[in-house]
Amino acid sequence: MAAKLGILAGGGALPRRLIKLCHETGREVFLVAFMGQTDPETTVGVDHLWTRLGAAGQIIKRLQAEQVRELVMVGPIKRPSMAELRPDWRAVQFFAKIGAKSLGDDSLLRSVITALEEEGFLFRGVDDLLQDLIAPEGIYGSSVPDVQAYSDIRRGVEVAKAMGKADVGQSVVVQQGLVLGVEAIEGTDALLTRCGLLRREGAGGVLVKLKKPEQERRADLPTIGIETLRRAAESGLRGVAIEAGGALVVDREALCREADQLGLFVLGISPSDYE
Amino acid sequence: MAAKLGILAGGGALPRRLIKLCHETGREVFLVAFMGQTDPETTVGVDHLWTRLGAAGQIIKRLQAEQVRELVMVGPIKRPSMAELRPDWRAVQFFAKIGAKSLGDDSLLRSVITALEEEGFLFRGVDDLLQDLIAPEGIYGSSVPDVQAYSDIRRGVEVAKAMGKADVGQSVVVQQGLVLGVEAIEGTDALLTRCGLLRREGAGGVLVKLKKPEQERRADLPTIGIETLRRAAESGLRGVAIEAGGALVVDREALCREADQLGLFVLGISPSDYE
Repeated sequence: MAAKLGILAGGGALPRRLIKLCHETGREVFLVAFMGQTDPETTVGVDHLWTRLGAAGQIIKRLQAEQVRELVMVGPIKRPSMAELRPDWRAVQFFAKIGAKSLGDDSLLRSVITALEEEGFLFRGVDDLLQDLIAPEGIYGSSVPDVQAYSDIRRGVEVAKAMGKADVGQSVVVQQGLVLGVEAIEGTDALLTRCGLLRREGAGGVLVKLKKPEQERRADLPTIGIETLRRAAESGLRGVAIEAGGALVVDREALCREADQLGLFVLGISPSDYE
Repeated sequence: MAAKLGILAGGGALPRRLIKLCHETGREVFLVAFMGQTDPETTVGVDHLWTRLGAAGQIIKRLQAEQVRELVMVGPIKRPSMAELRPDWRAVQFFAKIGAKSLGDDSLLRSVITALEEEGFLFRGVDDLLQDLIAPEGIYGSSVPDVQAYSDIRRGVEVAKAMGKADVGQSVVVQQGLVLGVEAIEGTDALLTRCGLLRREGAGGVLVKLKKPEQERRADLPTIGIETLRRAAESGLRGVAIEAGGALVVDREALCREADQLGLFVLGISPSDYE
């Protein structure tokens, strides 16, 4: 049987899904829940520690006491300011070591992973554990993009790639070639709402959501679910393109049904095909 | 005396400023005002044509009838959808020729300029005409950036450059290394308001506003004024960095006074110094 799994849980429903899988397969779990990040629902019926992101010393000690060796990071983590983080001594040493000028970067998550590996933990990617969630290539529902939509996807890929190189954002909304919005830390929901207000007349836009080129697969992969589609439809979009192999789809069957009901296309793409 | 100047007017107060200058220097002016774009105030006391962006044939004919040979484009133009544009036959030919897939790109403005030049018009940069508006290098008021602010400016320059290469956005807000927001078409005001809601505890962020690397100087340079500073202060920012020689500052003296009153720094930078 697989060793006990330590789950560092961000927001959303994905951590629960992983816990459920572990329960079903009889794998022991220890959950680290972060105040202001993890959904309290997630901790129900699981051994857990409520803590802060900055409490590195406490987290490492507890994981060791729980005899956890394998770790996974799952669910989006809102990036805090240094003030909100209130790093403990261990965390301060860590930040001094990596020379943290920034807390917003994907590179920070990579550094956290590296630091925990140096403590002897083994990091798993959530996509290893929940393989059925990885976005496949191709069209998911029964709606298909037209020529304008493909052209908008192409422009979205171009912008998302440029943004990703600067370690910012994963999501772009394009309508008729016009970049309506680009996501930084506000989240895809806020991006979609804003772009709904900025939409132009005529054929609706598309949401393109890629992983950053440098994104640590073991940190947070972009995720889409039914809620994403509903917001996209409300904002007047015609479809969503995600990176095949680089995004998580929560409950693909339900997603396809929802897409068909909303008349949206959902497409898994290889960004290099659009260059 | 200089020949009659044709002014293609976007929004804001800059077109009026240019008209005032022409009046003061006795230069004749013909104004092309765009519905939904140009402030109606702008047309008071000036020969003008109200038209749509898509009415290329009408515009060219009228400029020729007015014996305009020199043109300038001044003030921000909101990019319309193809449907809103309702291009006339002349404009359709133009779009077919440049293969317009997109209306959002800076490259579109460049193409418009090229097309008008082919019609025999001579294009001037607004910075040629209003030289005192060009942002100089250095600190404008009496507040100065601290080490964190300089580090945030550096990160902002990195992101703005990446965005600019993809022909999107000119403005980025960074707080403690965290990219709070990136501007697409929503405008700097909306960006600042949003970032106010996303701000973290601790030292406030900075707004970095560059021209795109490929930006056509004769199209729209980024502009800052007192309103920009007020919004920046309301959003918890500590300062604004703009590109020296690549941005327009409306009424620099008043801006410095306002910056001092708000306790904000305003800095004209050479982006290459921050690479």
